[in-house]
Amino acid sequence: MPTLSSEYVTRLGKDIFIACGASEQEASAVIEHLVTASLMGLASHGLIRIPQYVGLVEDGTIKPGAAITLEKDMGSTLIVNCGYTFGMYGANKATQIAIERAKKHGISCVLTKNCNHIGRVGAYPQMAAEAGMICIAANNSPKHGHFVSPFGGKQGRLAPNPIAFAAPTNGDPIVMDMSTCAISEGMVRVCLNRQEPVPEGCIVDADGKPTTDPKKFYGPPKGSILPFGGVAGYKGTALAMMAELLASTLLGYHITQDGLAGNGLCLQVIDISRFLPLDAFKHNADEMVAYIKSSPPAEGSSGVSVPGELNFASHRKCMKEGIELDDNTWGQITETAEKYKVRI
Amino acid sequence: MPTLSSEYVTRLGKDIFIACGASEQEASAVIEHLVTASLMGLASHGLIRIPQYVGLVEDGTIKPGAAITLEKDMGSTLIVNCGYTFGMYGANKATQIAIERAKKHGISCVLTKNCNHIGRVGAYPQMAAEAGMICIAANNSPKHGHFVSPFGGKQGRLAPNPIAFAAPTNGDPIVMDMSTCAISEGMVRVCLNRQEPVPEGCIVDADGKPTTDPKKFYGPPKGSILPFGGVAGYKGTALAMMAELLASTLLGYHITQDGLAGNGLCLQVIDISRFLPLDAFKHNADEMVAYIKSSPPAEGSSGVSVPGELNFASHRKCMKEGIELDDNTWGQITETAEKYKVRI
Repeated sequence: MPTLSSEYVTRLGKDIFIACGASEQEASAVIEHLVTASLMGLASHGLIRIPQYVGLVEDGTIKPGAAITLEKDMGSTLIVNCGYTFGMYGANKATQIAIERAKKHGISCVLTKNCNHIGRVGAYPQMAAEAGMICIAANNSPKHGHFVSPFGGKQGRLAPNPIAFAAPTNGDPIVMDMSTCAISEGMVRVCLNRQEPVPEGCIVDADGKPTTDPKKFYGPPKGSILPFGGVAGYKGTALAMMAELLASTLLGYHITQDGLAGNGLCLQVIDISRFLPLDAFKHNADEMVAYIKSSPPAEGSSGVSVPGELNFASHRKCMKEGIELDDNTWGQITETAEKYKVRI
Repeated sequence: MPTLSSEYVTRLGKDIFIACGASEQEASAVIEHLVTASLMGLASHGLIRIPQYVGLVEDGTIKPGAAITLEKDMGSTLIVNCGYTFGMYGANKATQIAIERAKKHGISCVLTKNCNHIGRVGAYPQMAAEAGMICIAANNSPKHGHFVSPFGGKQGRLAPNPIAFAAPTNGDPIVMDMSTCAISEGMVRVCLNRQEPVPEGCIVDADGKPTTDPKKFYGPPKGSILPFGGVAGYKGTALAMMAELLASTLLGYHITQDGLAGNGLCLQVIDISRFLPLDAFKHNADEMVAYIKSSPPAEGSSGVSVPGELNFASHRKCMKEGIELDDNTWGQITETAEKYKVRI
């Protein structure tokens, strides 16, 4: 279990991406995203992705250096065609454009098209919050990721379709980043590999019966992941459909179309200063955070944390103490580095 | 249990509101909203509110005839100051303006200020969907409505803060309208009055311990309603905070300020035709609905329904068969009518 500094893994990861064909800018955008996710305690969206993305470059899914172009640009609304370059590079660009356009027009709506895996969806609203904006993001995945059954159904019809939101305070921004299903497919796979049960209320077998056995999810016959919300799972399904409509239907995609790679991302950015001075907003948001956190802890709880708080705490801790990587992930990263003759 | 036609209750309710001081337009807007909610099977936001709103006019909370003015109007972003007229009349105006502005600018963000109870939040995105738009709405209530504890806390700090969304199809629009808590306070009161337990996983006592006893919610000492999401209740809390930030903080309101009446409403409206022809969107949305509904029913389920579907089915049924009202509600309505010498 090596513990690595963020500077070290940033240098290493960047070198790997450049060696496999990324431009300086692409490599920086991708590795900064991955390192930040690992620092924030979101390992599934962090450094573990380095070998995966290199593989996607090798098989042609990711096209380093592809031109990013604007389509249907009407000022406050537009589509950013990412040309299947690295998803994070494309989504960063889309967010920068959405912020600029919100500054100019008050509010903007930007969609990404032909966009590979964008990683941690919360990263993009967070960028907007750091620029004094409020942002709602919704994200979908195409048909091969439809592991999630709609409420009342027993076969997958939706991806985990996350929704994210961020707003600035005088401290860390408030960053919500939530999938609309009960558990990620990645976590079910971890349970399978560890021969452990999946937490209750997360998956069903092919008959739609509750189970904790990860084998019954993978089948055959295939089970599915439940929408989040338990008995109110219809709310999770509704949110997943909202994400699909915003990030995919609005782009002109067909939900039944397969063979599409990557993620659709819909960003809605609001310039706070159109409504009140940014300082006043931040002050009132601080007050809100303090008031919500003042609810005394329920039995068995360590107290109330606001969205993103634990991730920012992890970020500060890991910046000092380093990022712990499991041997398996580290082994894959060093193997990739060796293959591309990158200094480890 | 009288069963009443929608024409009859529309005439009766409109006459009552006019008799208590509403203009023709205000009375029409409010009664149409309430009748539609009752038709859609949402009794808690329907005709039951007639006597309540009349009481609010009498105590000066609702100010019939108050001017509605625009503030900070920058085109795509603005605040609609409703002057404490009927909330539904104000919110209808705000939605009409948001739709007009989205048509002109591609996307709009409209907030309401000094706005009384707006009723069924889904009504406003639904109006936008009927005009070929996509709309996200978020709604808050001031401090006296803070029945909902944040995840991990045992004292209420948030209102049920609903989030709504709508998008058009070739059939009924998709209309999501969800509170961000596990149960409404109204439903807990129904359980109290009927001396029935509250469903599990919805409320906690003053120590934050799960209970099904509605008396432990009302106290003293007061308990609270849980955020929705069960073990993932942090997602419900995050959504509730998002609604608060959009519908209240962005207006300049302080979360700890009491004495404010009414609801904040934030509407974000997107003109679909900026991205693709409306017909193509509707076609793809139809495809999505069919695909999601094609997931075979899980055991014990009658199948998948999409957001709003059951409400539109109820609307069609009640348009034919009439609206059933309980004797208590009907008694209150006729009493109010008699007081204002309105023909019953």
